[in-house]
Amino acid sequence: MTAIEDVDPRVTDMPTERLGTFADGVLAIVITLLVLELHVPSPDDSTGLAELLLEDWRQFGGYLISFVFVGGLWIASASVDSFIRRADPVLYRIHLLALFFVSFMPFTTSLMTTHLGSDGERLAVSIYGANLLIASITMNAFMKHAAHLAKSRGAIDDGAALERVEKQRRLTVVVLGIAAVLAVAVPRAAVAAYLIASLLFLVAPLIQARHRRRLEQR
Amino acid sequence: MTAIEDVDPRVTDMPTERLGTFADGVLAIVITLLVLELHVPSPDDSTGLAELLLEDWRQFGGYLISFVFVGGLWIASASVDSFIRRADPVLYRIHLLALFFVSFMPFTTSLMTTHLGSDGERLAVSIYGANLLIASITMNAFMKHAAHLAKSRGAIDDGAALERVEKQRRLTVVVLGIAAVLAVAVPRAAVAAYLIASLLFLVAPLIQARHRRRLEQR
Amino acid sequence: MTAIEDVDPRVTDMPTERLGTFADGVLAIVITLLVLELHVPSPDDSTGLAELLLEDWRQFGGYLISFVFVGGLWIASASVDSFIRRADPVLYRIHLLALFFVSFMPFTTSLMTTHLGSDGERLAVSIYGANLLIASITMNAFMKHAAHLAKSRGAIDDGAALERVEKQRRLTVVVLGIAAVLAVAVPRAAVAAYLIASLLFLVAPLIQARHRRRLEQR
Amino acid sequence: MTAIEDVDPRVTDMPTERLGTFADGVLAIVITLLVLELHVPSPDDSTGLAELLLEDWRQFGGYLISFVFVGGLWIASASVDSFIRRADPVLYRIHLLALFFVSFMPFTTSLMTTHLGSDGERLAVSIYGANLLIASITMNAFMKHAAHLAKSRGAIDDGAALERVEKQRRLTVVVLGIAAVLAVAVPRAAVAAYLIASLLFLVAPLIQARHRRRLEQR
Repeated sequence: MTAIEDVDPRVTDMPTERLGTFADGVLAIVITLLVLELHVPSPDDSTGLAELLLEDWRQFGGYLISFVFVGGLWIASASVDSFIRRADPVLYRIHLLALFFVSFMPFTTSLMTTHLGSDGERLAVSIYGANLLIASITMNAFMKHAAHLAKSRGAIDDGAALERVEKQRRLTVVVLGIAAVLAVAVPRAAVAAYLIASLLFLVAPLIQARHRRRLEQR
Repeated sequence: MTAIEDVDPRVTDMPTERLGTFADGVLAIVITLLVLELHVPSPDDSTGLAELLLEDWRQFGGYLISFVFVGGLWIASASVDSFIRRADPVLYRIHLLALFFVSFMPFTTSLMTTHLGSDGERLAVSIYGANLLIASITMNAFMKHAAHLAKSRGAIDDGAALERVEKQRRLTVVVLGIAAVLAVAVPRAAVAAYLIASLLFLVAPLIQARHRRRLEQR
Repeated sequence: MTAIEDVDPRVTDMPTERLGTFADGVLAIVITLLVLELHVPSPDDSTGLAELLLEDWRQFGGYLISFVFVGGLWIASASVDSFIRRADPVLYRIHLLALFFVSFMPFTTSLMTTHLGSDGERLAVSIYGANLLIASITMNAFMKHAAHLAKSRGAIDDGAALERVEKQRRLTVVVLGIAAVLAVAVPRAAVAAYLIASLLFLVAPLIQARHRRRLEQR
Repeated sequence: MTAIEDVDPRVTDMPTERLGTFADGVLAIVITLLVLELHVPSPDDSTGLAELLLEDWRQFGGYLISFVFVGGLWIASASVDSFIRRADPVLYRIHLLALFFVSFMPFTTSLMTTHLGSDGERLAVSIYGANLLIASITMNAFMKHAAHLAKSRGAIDDGAALERVEKQRRLTVVVLGIAAVLAVAVPRAAVAAYLIASLLFLVAPLIQARHRRRLEQR
């Protein structure tokens, strides 16, 4: 295990490309591992397949929410790509910390869907909400430090674009913070909110793309 | 979770490279996760291994079909690579939507192979057929929007090549639509059709490659 | 599912980069999925952990062989990288066929290690040997077609290097063919041969590297 | 299986890029597969969820240690990226050997967490410690040979930076060697040491980043 003193201030320059490829790798794996938590019902003489699948709505809901959250991180990560001009060991470590909480999501998703409706509901949903919030906060810390590194070298061309991305990321953290509080207070309301937001996130762009093409064709 | 309003029309430019690396990651993982659904029979005193493996023909068939479908998406995705010159947040989100249905395939494949021959056969095969169809439609929506973005910047060099790819993708959707209807009406016929098409898809190029090399050697 | 007629001879040019990234993705996933087949023994009052682990020597041996085989394919694939100057849909499809047999390996590995010592031993080891052989043959077909495409454009700089790689690949197929015959005739001898070859493959380079550095230091 | 004689001294040049993409792939997969070893407790009438999760502290601790170790290898691997100017088949094989021990970690992690507190504790923790140590040693052998190849071509610009990285890697091996000895002598003390070092590794950069930004703002 590399000791702490290895963050030598003189060793400042590390390749920026490997941040993106590793993040894409981890995010792609987490997003596809989620499907392994979905359990296929066995053929059952007394209950029809449709009924068996409907009974499992919790796991499908959890799959949807976590898929959209990890996918949203991927898009956020791609949107700051052009601002990452320099990397140092501290940036790599903050990135690793953010991915630590992302990698945890298949577990917390399964924890939530398994205990929804049981005694452990409040704790399970709270842990899930906290996971989303902390993953988002640490990802922001990564982007903040990356922007700082780029600025210290005067390498930000479009400061306004960076500010828009940062403002939006802060908004996301606030929304996830409110959702986490809701998860502790009224777990099921939080789950419903996560579900609605995720569905909108996935369906909205299809409508927007059609709308925009029409506008431009005029 | 990033809110819907983040699709800011001013933030139009996002890196195009990360679409390909993330897609390759997700497709590669889905295609290899499929093998985890194959179950190894335990040694059994009364039944020989050959017999036990033959009893599991359903899971091998499902593996073959899904592998070829995901592989076909990878080839289709690579064939439009040269047309993707610009990316915006809407394009990223449509891509995510398409990958959502692709990631679902290890589950629907296992659902189909588990219930083939049981009461839930019709529903299971229909869900599988619908999954293939919707994954293909959303992937087309992705390509359509990508082509639109490139055209709006006048960045399409070979319009005829793009049209050929688009025509072929539309044909694929029509074929998968017919297969999905067949899946509802005569589930086993649909499975047979999927199997034959997949086998042909894998074996044909070997014959073609040899044939073409002979032609050129004359 | 893309139909067979999509291999349009006019659509010859596809990106070469995505062959490597997808192959690296699939090979990296297969090589790491193998570890999921290793089962951790539960604490047991009557038998010590050392004994329990030794009883599982089959699974560790299978892990070693398959890891080395997939790793060898990765090295072979990287060694022809500089010869791949052009890609067409046929090349993509042959690549997919080769990856199909590679993806199958976690299953056939587990099949072999589960049935070694049981009645199904001969069949299980034969299936495993056949898998290695076919994966190697299809990977060769991929390299052959890639070399053909490059030559047809006069894009091979170092013909001698390509010939060395091709000769070595043919040798590998012959060796694997002999091993497959051995697997049918004397399954355990084949497993022993695979094990020894794999161990040598992993340990040899360490000795060679040290040897070469000494030679150059003189 | 490629035979041993394929390390032909004449075939010296192989692409350097695929070392990084394959390593990133394997490390990203191993780091995310670790989460599959975490088991979600079932709802239980007599015991609360909080209690059930606390009982599983071993698996969470093992997850943390292995995540940080693999992440540390990723950072180390990225830090020598700029020194890797040439690759030969021997370098590829040493890399594969290092990844072999890394891929083994989900198994040894689970072995350790399952047997902590049982009779097999000493053996399980010793195997885990040995795995970390050998993975680190072989990764160093990889870096050593890469540096040797670059030097033999006079392609090292910043010799001092390379020496700093090498010195730090040697320090890591010494620390892991001491930890491995501790694992044999006092298994639980070794686990505690791994845990503390991992926590510090993850948390330290956040504090450092803030500290550095403040310093520069003065």
